[in-house]
Amino acid sequence: MKFLSSVLFLAAVAEVSAADSGAKERPSLKNAIYKNAKAPVDDRVADLLSRMTLEEKTSQLVQGDVRNWMNETDNSFNRTGLEWSTRFRGGSFYVGIAVPQTWISEATRKAQEYIQKHTYLGIPALVQTEAIHGFLAINATIFNSPIAQACSWNPSLVEEMARVIAKESLALGVNQVFAPLADLSRELRFGRVEETYGEDGFLVGEMAHAYVVGIQDGGVSAMVKHFAAFGSPEQGLNVGPKRAIIDGGAFSIMTAYHSYDGVPAVADPHLLTDILRDEWNYKYFTMTDAGASDRLCQAFKMCRADPIDKEAIVNFILPAGGDVEMGGGSYSFEKIPDFVKSGLISIEMVDTAVARVLKAKFELGLFENPFPGLGADKTQTTIHTAPHIALAQKLDEESIVLLENHENVLPLSKTASIAVIGPMAHGFMNYGDYVVFNSSKRGVTPLDGLKAASEGKVTYAQGCERWSTSESGFPAAVAAAEAADVAVVIVGTWSRDQNELWQGLNATTGEHVDVDTLDLVGAQEALVRAIVATGKPTVVVFSSGKPITAPWISEEAAALVQQFYPSEQGGAALANVLLGDVNPSGKLSVSFPRNVGSLPIYYDFLNSGHDAAPDVGTAYENGTLAFGHQYVLGDPRPLYEFGYGLSYSSFAYSGVSVDKKNVTATDTVTVSVTVKNTSRREGSEVVQLYVKDLVASVVVPNIQLKGFEKVALKAGESKKVQIKVKMQNLGVWNARMKYVVEAGEFLFLVGASSSDFRGNATVTLK
Amino acid sequence: MKFLSSVLFLAAVAEVSAADSGAKERPSLKNAIYKNAKAPVDDRVADLLSRMTLEEKTSQLVQGDVRNWMNETDNSFNRTGLEWSTRFRGGSFYVGIAVPQTWISEATRKAQEYIQKHTYLGIPALVQTEAIHGFLAINATIFNSPIAQACSWNPSLVEEMARVIAKESLALGVNQVFAPLADLSRELRFGRVEETYGEDGFLVGEMAHAYVVGIQDGGVSAMVKHFAAFGSPEQGLNVGPKRAIIDGGAFSIMTAYHSYDGVPAVADPHLLTDILRDEWNYKYFTMTDAGASDRLCQAFKMCRADPIDKEAIVNFILPAGGDVEMGGGSYSFEKIPDFVKSGLISIEMVDTAVARVLKAKFELGLFENPFPGLGADKTQTTIHTAPHIALAQKLDEESIVLLENHENVLPLSKTASIAVIGPMAHGFMNYGDYVVFNSSKRGVTPLDGLKAASEGKVTYAQGCERWSTSESGFPAAVAAAEAADVAVVIVGTWSRDQNELWQGLNATTGEHVDVDTLDLVGAQEALVRAIVATGKPTVVVFSSGKPITAPWISEEAAALVQQFYPSEQGGAALANVLLGDVNPSGKLSVSFPRNVGSLPIYYDFLNSGHDAAPDVGTAYENGTLAFGHQYVLGDPRPLYEFGYGLSYSSFAYSGVSVDKKNVTATDTVTVSVTVKNTSRREGSEVVQLYVKDLVASVVVPNIQLKGFEKVALKAGESKKVQIKVKMQNLGVWNARMKYVVEAGEFLFLVGASSSDFRGNATVTLK
Repeated sequence: MKFLSSVLFLAAVAEVSAADSGAKERPSLKNAIYKNAKAPVDDRVADLLSRMTLEEKTSQLVQGDVRNWMNETDNSFNRTGLEWSTRFRGGSFYVGIAVPQTWISEATRKAQEYIQKHTYLGIPALVQTEAIHGFLAINATIFNSPIAQACSWNPSLVEEMARVIAKESLALGVNQVFAPLADLSRELRFGRVEETYGEDGFLVGEMAHAYVVGIQDGGVSAMVKHFAAFGSPEQGLNVGPKRAIIDGGAFSIMTAYHSYDGVPAVADPHLLTDILRDEWNYKYFTMTDAGASDRLCQAFKMCRADPIDKEAIVNFILPAGGDVEMGGGSYSFEKIPDFVKSGLISIEMVDTAVARVLKAKFELGLFENPFPGLGADKTQTTIHTAPHIALAQKLDEESIVLLENHENVLPLSKTASIAVIGPMAHGFMNYGDYVVFNSSKRGVTPLDGLKAASEGKVTYAQGCERWSTSESGFPAAVAAAEAADVAVVIVGTWSRDQNELWQGLNATTGEHVDVDTLDLVGAQEALVRAIVATGKPTVVVFSSGKPITAPWISEEAAALVQQFYPSEQGGAALANVLLGDVNPSGKLSVSFPRNVGSLPIYYDFLNSGHDAAPDVGTAYENGTLAFGHQYVLGDPRPLYEFGYGLSYSSFAYSGVSVDKKNVTATDTVTVSVTVKNTSRREGSEVVQLYVKDLVASVVVPNIQLKGFEKVALKAGESKKVQIKVKMQNLGVWNARMKYVVEAGEFLFLVGASSSDFRGNATVTLK
Repeated sequence: MKFLSSVLFLAAVAEVSAADSGAKERPSLKNAIYKNAKAPVDDRVADLLSRMTLEEKTSQLVQGDVRNWMNETDNSFNRTGLEWSTRFRGGSFYVGIAVPQTWISEATRKAQEYIQKHTYLGIPALVQTEAIHGFLAINATIFNSPIAQACSWNPSLVEEMARVIAKESLALGVNQVFAPLADLSRELRFGRVEETYGEDGFLVGEMAHAYVVGIQDGGVSAMVKHFAAFGSPEQGLNVGPKRAIIDGGAFSIMTAYHSYDGVPAVADPHLLTDILRDEWNYKYFTMTDAGASDRLCQAFKMCRADPIDKEAIVNFILPAGGDVEMGGGSYSFEKIPDFVKSGLISIEMVDTAVARVLKAKFELGLFENPFPGLGADKTQTTIHTAPHIALAQKLDEESIVLLENHENVLPLSKTASIAVIGPMAHGFMNYGDYVVFNSSKRGVTPLDGLKAASEGKVTYAQGCERWSTSESGFPAAVAAAEAADVAVVIVGTWSRDQNELWQGLNATTGEHVDVDTLDLVGAQEALVRAIVATGKPTVVVFSSGKPITAPWISEEAAALVQQFYPSEQGGAALANVLLGDVNPSGKLSVSFPRNVGSLPIYYDFLNSGHDAAPDVGTAYENGTLAFGHQYVLGDPRPLYEFGYGLSYSSFAYSGVSVDKKNVTATDTVTVSVTVKNTSRREGSEVVQLYVKDLVASVVVPNIQLKGFEKVALKAGESKKVQIKVKMQNLGVWNARMKYVVEAGEFLFLVGASSSDFRGNATVTLK
């Protein structure tokens, strides 16, 4: 809360308040409690609320848009638009558009200054944009996608990233970001898998928590999304969002688009009131996602759609606990004054919602410093700086997962001649969604990275276009492979920036881009076959936003590397891993199925969900069919499981123990394990702790991740790793939906993945 | 209840009661109310219950097995085994094994006679077997699988079938069948799709109801399975089971294997007590599925598995509302006397369960006639008679669905020379699961049927084995096609009889045989390609237990016919359709996806579940990729929708109207439509009525089937079809989980499938 003491900006506008039309008749604000930075926040909220008109309150509950007063193309300023937007949609406004940095900072400054100078109450606006993997603005630092970040299993890097995002955002006046995204990727066909921190509630929770801490400590308010259960988890509400929302202290929450059990999340009193308020005691506001309020009538058919029934929409959302309406729809919340007058909505409901917004604004320090943005001359030392870029690369390096390394073909010799092949190798940056327009033109491609880092000859052949089945480029690619010592073939999925995506350009992942197969699209798989067939050692890199299904590559390629959508330094990070300057330490944040037909594939399936030893079948490449039953010619288990990842080093685990074997529900157990780097190379290992509740009164997941630690070890070095688990976190929601920590035995499994266990200990709770 | 008046059998044993050891000390039963056939059933139950020891009560709650006293191989009778089984597992026993008919009738007669003569109370046993598509006994009539039967949309044929099953079962002393199966096939990868009546609650409800009425009117008790929500419906409890259980008056219910929301169905008090008893007021008993009780410890890990915790199992199931334990596990219910003595279980709980069993037995008339079985000399006039076989064929004929008929290639000329090709064409009967051992050796194959019905030359080439990728048989198949006027290629899935299935022989559908793809297995798809490539008109027949995904066949074959697993007259039925003696009238009971990656695919998805007009993509056979978004290269909509099916006739719909447009919740609306056969051929059309609830307070299915009628029309004939809908059946479970019929508009859509609507009318409920 570094802005609480800053009064610089306020001083400049101190004498010019109360210029709006109604101000003449309203009392002086000279000694208003809400103006006093030292007064308790709740007093300030109450004081301010008591001074607001119904129109002013309503304005706090509707999102505006910067384009209401600034023209995107000619930069012209529309004062009337700003006045109107402030009056009716003044609580927050959106700036996530592809315009020059100074455009954003000037438009934002104008708005905040107008509010201070020309409105009676001077309630600063929340200035909002996207930022799940970087501040969504031209030339801001682009980090790798969240699904990748989670593979680092390094929340402190995510926290650092969030601080960078906060710094870059604040520089242009942005004080709230629609991040982190705390959904779970339980359904891999879904386009937004890349936006998640993976499939597991604990890992997602740690990552989202780190993001919230970093961004809010940096002075920017987090809006955790999407509440709740948006990624189709089958096990009900997960710990993920709660960890970010409550433990992280997030100042706001975005509700989700979907419905659960017949009730849309946007208007679900059980989620938004019973759980969020009554159970979790959350004090700040919730906001609908773009256009989500209209979906009540249009998609869910719970009200008349034409003309849209604004009365019904407000009456569904506000009483359920939905506080603020985002734009992108019909702005039903603008009608709140009418509905209060008609008796549909009580003023108390409105006050509750407004108070939550104000509380966030006070605690964020906005009343003391609504515009911490910098002059254009200073953005170069604040945005996209060398340390920021270096952090993006480091996080990317730690996120790369080595899946196969037959005969230790990796790391490549620095002097090897390399044929870089594939449509994802060069020509554009293969970013995930939620980057600004034209981002794909900027960054270090795999070819760039390898050329810069290799001391040998590096050639390039595209092989095929990502969107085509044409094999006309194959001969050149095969020739390049044959002429080199090794081939690096980079194939995968692709997304688009926020403009291209919503224009509908082709893509295979991203928001509203769903698939019915996880196979490679177009000629890519055939390209890999053609290069493997040359007999040259072929390193395949999946550059993608979600798992790809091509199990034969795991066996027939020399090595297989997974790089989920990269940062702007992606090619450099990849080159460092391939050439051995970085020892890979990433572990999968999501399980890899063999086939789209075995979804969902997450590791923490409910007891009885799978057989422990399914009777699997196999259709061999030579035509032999070995029949099984689960499945007839397939395997329900993942090809690569959650938490899996190789290193150039090897690690030995020993001495798994717990500090207490008999515990109560209030105890914390410390699990110890010694990990030794048994290789001649420095490396990092992610030590993972899973807990199996041996007997429970309801059906629970077969195992659940409950702790992890990434440990760096020099060649030959041993370290004792200790992971703490609160027994309180091993409870279940029993048949009466009460959270209880049940007596019984818990098996603590320490391992290198969710199925590679290296030791265990049993803890008994009385 | 035709046996209520029969006292023949009882007369034979009237004088020989009370021979069991404890009888001497027990009071005379001479005037016992429970012995009085004219006394009210509840009085009889109360009287009998008051006379029972705890051991006798417990015995009613545990299933026995006929093999306890009869040896399967040498036919020897073990009196001690019968005494023991009656004493401890005497309420019911299972006879579903592959033994001669007389073995079953004799073993059953011995048991019922023993009970009458040598036990004090003489409580007749329920004699149980499987019968979802025919009495599971050697040489009983085999009907087509339920998934097929449902395609007939002719519940009266299913009711007739159930009467036949009752007659054949009773002839051997069987008085209870584990049927109908009222689960919905919402998950097509599941092995048991073939056992269901399809994906829709209404159709399943009508079919299961017809089965219950037919079987129970025939004197055999139905055990509806599996309660509840076993087929993974996403919309909670469906009308299907309720229609069969309550409206049908089924005497028992089998609970399900799975868990929902953390609670196994076998021990779910919400399902088994709150809903089944408190809400539906169901009076008879529930029974666990085979081995399902042990799964609480073994699969669900809710109790100690080794040694199995019988105390926990009983304590989970009995208080939840689970009354009787089936065999196949550890027989935890045998320990009930100990648990009553220890205070774990109250005697009231036991009495409640026993009373439910007794009520079913009294109402079934078992006390008056426990053994209606016939002598061996009479079975030939009762089991597998010509009328039964004819009914099987008629139901099969009405179940065949014509999917494509390019240029009206069908029906074939009677004199055409036909090359019958494919592994499902001959050599075995492609029955679904739940048939007795070696059934596949008996029946009319497609080749048999075509040879018998065609006047032209009929040749045969297998082409490939169903379980192999070998194409060595292709040249002969191609040659056969080239030599004929037309090729009929029969490919698909296969299951096994109950012995082979549990031995683990290869199969691609059936219980515990799940798949991760719906594509054809082995060389079958390539075989179709090879035959189509000959240029001969190629009629493809899918002989299968679930939808197959091979969309190209729909375009490139001359015709496509779906015959779900057939009856023993399957080949004759198919030949009659292909040659035009029967005009196809089947409509799909389940939607066909294009790809396993688009599951689940059912038509009644929730509002907002799909876009009405998704942005689909296509990967053309020529290599062109047309990118979309839902899916990138696919389509979430079915290739063939629920309710779809062609005829050799064409039908015109006109004059859709409702008898009232403004209604109350207690009204019944009659929808009228005139259907005309505009062809020169007699045919039947299934007129379908779907209702769309235009605005609801919760998210509801986009449309729901609410009525249908199959109407036969001569060439040129018109008929007015009237379908009644009770407004009471158009309610929703609101956000407070209360069933309410909400005011508003309902769109009544009349059509020939779930997406081919021919007229509509709006009804407004005040």
